[in-house]
Amino acid sequence: FDADAADAARDRQAELTKPPGSLGRLEDLAVALAGLAGDPRPQLSNPTVVVAAADHGVVDRGVSAYPKSVTRAMLRNFAAGGAAVSAIGEVVGAETLVVDAGVDGPPVEVDGSIGIVDERIGSGTADLAAGPAMSRADAVASLSAGVRTARTRLSEAGIAALGEMGIGNTTVAAALTAALSGADPDRVTGPGTGVDEETRAHKVAVVERALATNGLADGGEPDVGSDVDPVEVLRRVGGYEVGFLAGVAIGCAADRTPVVVDGVVSGAAALVADAVTADVRPYLLPSHVGSEPGHAVQLDVLDLEPLFDHGLRLGEGSGAALALATYRAACRTHDRMATFAEVGIER
Amino acid sequence: FDADAADAARDRQAELTKPPGSLGRLEDLAVALAGLAGDPRPQLSNPTVVVAAADHGVVDRGVSAYPKSVTRAMLRNFAAGGAAVSAIGEVVGAETLVVDAGVDGPPVEVDGSIGIVDERIGSGTADLAAGPAMSRADAVASLSAGVRTARTRLSEAGIAALGEMGIGNTTVAAALTAALSGADPDRVTGPGTGVDEETRAHKVAVVERALATNGLADGGEPDVGSDVDPVEVLRRVGGYEVGFLAGVAIGCAADRTPVVVDGVVSGAAALVADAVTADVRPYLLPSHVGSEPGHAVQLDVLDLEPLFDHGLRLGEGSGAALALATYRAACRTHDRMATFAEVGIER
Repeated sequence: FDADAADAARDRQAELTKPPGSLGRLEDLAVALAGLAGDPRPQLSNPTVVVAAADHGVVDRGVSAYPKSVTRAMLRNFAAGGAAVSAIGEVVGAETLVVDAGVDGPPVEVDGSIGIVDERIGSGTADLAAGPAMSRADAVASLSAGVRTARTRLSEAGIAALGEMGIGNTTVAAALTAALSGADPDRVTGPGTGVDEETRAHKVAVVERALATNGLADGGEPDVGSDVDPVEVLRRVGGYEVGFLAGVAIGCAADRTPVVVDGVVSGAAALVADAVTADVRPYLLPSHVGSEPGHAVQLDVLDLEPLFDHGLRLGEGSGAALALATYRAACRTHDRMATFAEVGIER
Repeated sequence: FDADAADAARDRQAELTKPPGSLGRLEDLAVALAGLAGDPRPQLSNPTVVVAAADHGVVDRGVSAYPKSVTRAMLRNFAAGGAAVSAIGEVVGAETLVVDAGVDGPPVEVDGSIGIVDERIGSGTADLAAGPAMSRADAVASLSAGVRTARTRLSEAGIAALGEMGIGNTTVAAALTAALSGADPDRVTGPGTGVDEETRAHKVAVVERALATNGLADGGEPDVGSDVDPVEVLRRVGGYEVGFLAGVAIGCAADRTPVVVDGVVSGAAALVADAVTADVRPYLLPSHVGSEPGHAVQLDVLDLEPLFDHGLRLGEGSGAALALATYRAACRTHDRMATFAEVGIER
């Protein structure tokens, strides 16, 4: 964090043609983004929503309202620009980077104008309620793929947003959130795509079994050492898209690029990234608080104050994409407004 | 309100490639906008922020941190694109329509690329604490100018946002809000541009005096008949920009164009419009709740649930402009997302 850049931004805010403080949180955001970017007038050029998709073996246990094949169909939909995040990205002037991090079956081929980046770790994970979701090598590979993507494809982005798709991944997010925050599974497991209360209760049982099976049932202490090993947690109850997005957050932070967190699945990725390295935390930015109950728990752990609550529970990066309008407004006012001196107003 | 269009929009929402309800409030907004526009897929083309400026005689009583001349300087700043609302308008893809509704002195001439529409009612109002702010003819003229502007210059706009500028106009807004809602002046009078508590207390006294002088002190019953006459309230304690924006709301509603309310001054205009005709209410849309205390009172009266709270207190339409991103996202997802059938997902 560049305190000099933040101070210079604060000084500039006081000169802009508005009563001091009258843009409220937008002013605070502009100052914070200046400090993060090391630029008194941060530009947020090339805002990009990274949408990573993968499949999950746990879906075979009936935790979702949709079959696994929907992940593949939706990946094609992202590529064709027909998804919610595609439309919101257009409104806020953000690019969408669509990534296959490990969808079930062969690589997804598309005809659409937006290509799909192939960062496949595997053809879906194993059932985390029966054992580890993936190998240690694949957990590291998913993180590495995200870091690499951040440092190459996002190198020109002034801000990134995390998005995802993967049938079953709110179950994965619940397991990760319980393991990394110590929260009770029942508290962090929601209806996801919209299952009924009976199925949600089954989902809680699946999460509890996943944690027990993987030695994570005691409030987030994996049995691999004295401290929580987030890579091990990811390996046991994570997913490829979650690891990938955690890597994106780590890589972006290393490049001083702020990262907007979306819903409960990208929130789980943020928890993993935060546990991997404390360097990530300052670069994590809030968007909304969604209706999945684990999301508020994550935001509390990460100390992120949401910008709005529209009762979203879609994922894809939809809420984070919408929040880009607020971050862009904060930086655009900061950069483009005239000063009192420039318009000849004496104070 | 076109219930058939709203029903068709609701049906379409159920077909889009997302779990039903997962876009939360965005879905409700899309359905509501469909009903308002009478179009199952409302487009919100040419979103426009109307920024009307005028001066106020009450400023001579020391109710603001800034002199009257700042209104004129800021009007030029809007025209040059150097104000907060200019920058936010750019981010959300909205045009800014800048109107001189009665700035002190001669018409404002500008060199900037954005012209200033001349709808001047007069050269600032009279001191509302000493008597009526304007004549009955001017009150009607300010409303008429707004209606005319809505029906001509905004005829192609799918959505409009209300913005304003006028040193002293939070005092005017407080008086109007007290008169039209019956709320106590102390409850609806805030620091405005940022005056200290002593000056705010003085401002409350000025508002109380304005209400008493103008026969509006008894909880919103002007002494002109058995019911509140909003034109008479506007004449006595209003302002030219407030009347103009009330007229814009009335004209937009007549054209079935939704109108996004900004802060406490455009909120006062919305109260006036709502009192003039009940036809306006369905077309008033919320944006934020600001830090001026009268704003929450207005939103409560108008039954508007804010989309966000960023502690804004600038006016200009800044919060309403930012909210346009949310409305555009609601309609763009609704219009552009693929259906399950289109992407070949069986349900």
